[in-house]
Amino acid sequence: MKVNGIPTRSIRSVDGGRAVEIIDQTQLPYRVEKRVLSDWRDCVEAISTMRVRGAPLIGVTGAWGVALAAQEHPENAKLISAAETIANARPTAVNLSWAVQRMLAALLPRDPSLRAETAVKLAEEITQEDVLTCRAIGEAGVPVIAELYRKLRRPVNILTHCNAGWLATVDYGTALAPIYAAFERGMPVHVWVDETRPRNQGLLTAWELKEHGVPHTIIADNAGGQLMQQGDVDLVIVGADRITRRGDVANKIGTYLKALAAYDNEIPFYAAAPASTIDMRLSDGKREIPIENRSPNELLVVTGVNAEGRTSSVQIAPLDESVANPAFDVTHNRFVTGIITERGIVKPTELASVFKDLIRD
Amino acid sequence: MKVNGIPTRSIRSVDGGRAVEIIDQTQLPYRVEKRVLSDWRDCVEAISTMRVRGAPLIGVTGAWGVALAAQEHPENAKLISAAETIANARPTAVNLSWAVQRMLAALLPRDPSLRAETAVKLAEEITQEDVLTCRAIGEAGVPVIAELYRKLRRPVNILTHCNAGWLATVDYGTALAPIYAAFERGMPVHVWVDETRPRNQGLLTAWELKEHGVPHTIIADNAGGQLMQQGDVDLVIVGADRITRRGDVANKIGTYLKALAAYDNEIPFYAAAPASTIDMRLSDGKREIPIENRSPNELLVVTGVNAEGRTSSVQIAPLDESVANPAFDVTHNRFVTGIITERGIVKPTELASVFKDLIRD
Repeated sequence: MKVNGIPTRSIRSVDGGRAVEIIDQTQLPYRVEKRVLSDWRDCVEAISTMRVRGAPLIGVTGAWGVALAAQEHPENAKLISAAETIANARPTAVNLSWAVQRMLAALLPRDPSLRAETAVKLAEEITQEDVLTCRAIGEAGVPVIAELYRKLRRPVNILTHCNAGWLATVDYGTALAPIYAAFERGMPVHVWVDETRPRNQGLLTAWELKEHGVPHTIIADNAGGQLMQQGDVDLVIVGADRITRRGDVANKIGTYLKALAAYDNEIPFYAAAPASTIDMRLSDGKREIPIENRSPNELLVVTGVNAEGRTSSVQIAPLDESVANPAFDVTHNRFVTGIITERGIVKPTELASVFKDLIRD
Repeated sequence: MKVNGIPTRSIRSVDGGRAVEIIDQTQLPYRVEKRVLSDWRDCVEAISTMRVRGAPLIGVTGAWGVALAAQEHPENAKLISAAETIANARPTAVNLSWAVQRMLAALLPRDPSLRAETAVKLAEEITQEDVLTCRAIGEAGVPVIAELYRKLRRPVNILTHCNAGWLATVDYGTALAPIYAAFERGMPVHVWVDETRPRNQGLLTAWELKEHGVPHTIIADNAGGQLMQQGDVDLVIVGADRITRRGDVANKIGTYLKALAAYDNEIPFYAAAPASTIDMRLSDGKREIPIENRSPNELLVVTGVNAEGRTSSVQIAPLDESVANPAFDVTHNRFVTGIITERGIVKPTELASVFKDLIRD
C-alpha cells in the first residue's frame, strides 16, 4: 500500500537478500523511519522491541533472520542456535516459530555451502506467500462491501478494531485488505478506526489509511456502540489472533464488545484472517484459549508528541496503581457473520468442513 | 469520603459562607490542590474550566456563585446578570441552571439587604441536600452488594465506568455511593475501574477509591467484556446523565457496551442516580436524547506526568486527523436491571409510576 504516494511494504529484501529493510513501527505514526537489518541479530532486536509487529510480519521477519544467519554461518550448530534465538524473540507469536521451523526444515538437509542461496530464496517465497494470502483475503471480502454499496448508494461505513492492516503483514493486511480492495475498485468507503487502548494500534490503522487516501475517522473504543445505534456503521471487519474450529474468534481486547453491539444493531460482523489462524484443536474459545495478561505500563504510559514536537511519554496514573491488562478476548461464533479467508468467506459453523485439510491428529 | 485519611468533600463553605473551598479537579489525580473561591467570578471560572465537574457538583458550585454575588451586590440588576453568567458557565449542565434558578427564586422576593444571609443559608441547604440524596442512594444500593456477598462469600467484584463518585457530587457520589456504604459496613468489595476514554475520568474514580482505601483495579475500556466472560465481574453500577420515564439510561460513552456484555453474561447492571436525573418528558432514549459531540482534542491530547514529574500533555495523532467524539450513549431499558435512587431501587418499567410526582404537563 502507499506511503506518501509510493507503494510500500512493511519489509523487503535489499542487496540481493543480504539484508532486509523494515519500517520502524515504534516510531509510527509520528515518524516514518526505515531501517536496514543486515545481521540476524538485528532481526531479533526488531522483533523483540516491536519495531516489527503483527503475527504475519513477525513470521516473515523471522524467516529473513534465519536467511541472514545462513549467510553468516551456514554450519549446523551456529545456524540452529541462531534459529532458536530468533524463534524466541517473541515467544507467543505462533507464526514466528512456524516460519523459523520451515526455514530450518529446508536448510538442514542441504550442504552448508548451498544453504545461503536456498535460504534467501525461501525467505522471498515466504514473503511473497504472505502478500498473496492477504490479497486473496481482500478479494474474498470485496463482495460484502460491494453488496452494501449496491444497497446503500452512499459510502459504506466500516468499523475496525486494532491494526490488521499491511503494517501487520507484508502488504494489504487482513481486516483492511477487503477495504483496500474495494477502495481500489472505486467503491466509496469510510472507516471508523477504534483507538484500541491500551496500545493504541488504531493510530497505526489511521496512519495506513491516511497514507493510502482512504477516508476514515478515529474514535475512542467506547464510541462504536453509539455509532451503531445511530445507523452510522454498516459493517464491522476485524482481524483475528486465533479462530477455533467452530468459529469462536480470539482477537485484540475489546473486539467482543463491538461484536455484541453489532449483533444488537443487526450489523454484519466479520473476522478476516488466513487459514493459518484457524486452530482445529480448539472448539470453545472462551474456555480453551488462554488470554495473555500484559504489562500495566501499556495502560499507564501513553506515548505521543510533546509540545516541542518530540516523541514523548506521559504516565496517566501512579505506577503503583493496580492495573489488569488482558490483551485479547474471545467472540462467540453466534456473533460472527463470517470469516473472510484466502479461500473465501466461510460461516463459523462451516469452518471445520471447509478447512478439514488442516485437521491433524 | 477520605483523602489522605481525612474526611473531605468536593466543596465546602469557609469564612461563614463568604467563600467556598474546592479541590481543583484539573490537577487530579496528579496533585491535590485546594482552591478558595471568594468571588462569584471565581465560581464561573472553576465551572467553565472544569476545576469542578459532575452535574451535581456543578449545580452546588453555581448556587454558591449566586450566594457570593448576593453578598457583593444584592440589588436586582447586578444579581440577575451575575446569575445569568453563572448559569451559562457550562450550558449543557441542567443542574446548574436549576440551582441558579432556585437561588434567584428565593432571593428576588426579598429585600436586597436581607439577601446575603438568605443566599448563604440556601446554598448550604442545597449542598446538604446533595449529600443526603447521595447517602440515600448509597443506602438503597447496599442490599444488592450484601446479597451477592452472602451468596459468593468472597469479595464482590463491581465494575464501574467514568466517575460517578464523590468528586462529581459533594460527597458519597452516585454509582460509588453503594460501594462506599458496603465498604463502610465491612463487606469485602473490589472495583474494576474503566479508564473511560477519551477524558480518562476513571482515573478520578481510581484516585477516590485509593484515598478511601477501597480495593480496585484500573482497566482499559476494552477489557470489561473479557473480565465478565471469565466470571470476574459480579455486578455493574454506573451513574447516569439522563434517564427516560421507561428507564433508558444516557450515560458516559461506552456504558452501552458494558451493559451489552453484562446482559450477555447474566450480570446485574444498575444505574445509580438521583430522581432529578429522570426526564419524564422522554421515553425512547435512543431516538429522543440528543448526544453531544465534543472536541477531537479530548481524544488526541492525553495528559499525565512526564519524566520530570511535571503534569504534561502529549498528542497521540496529528491534529488534522478526522476524529468523532460522541460524549454519551443510551442503554435500552431491557439491559438495565434497576435504577438505584434516593427512594430505593426501581425497575426501569416501574419508574413512571414510582416517580409520577415528577411528571409535569
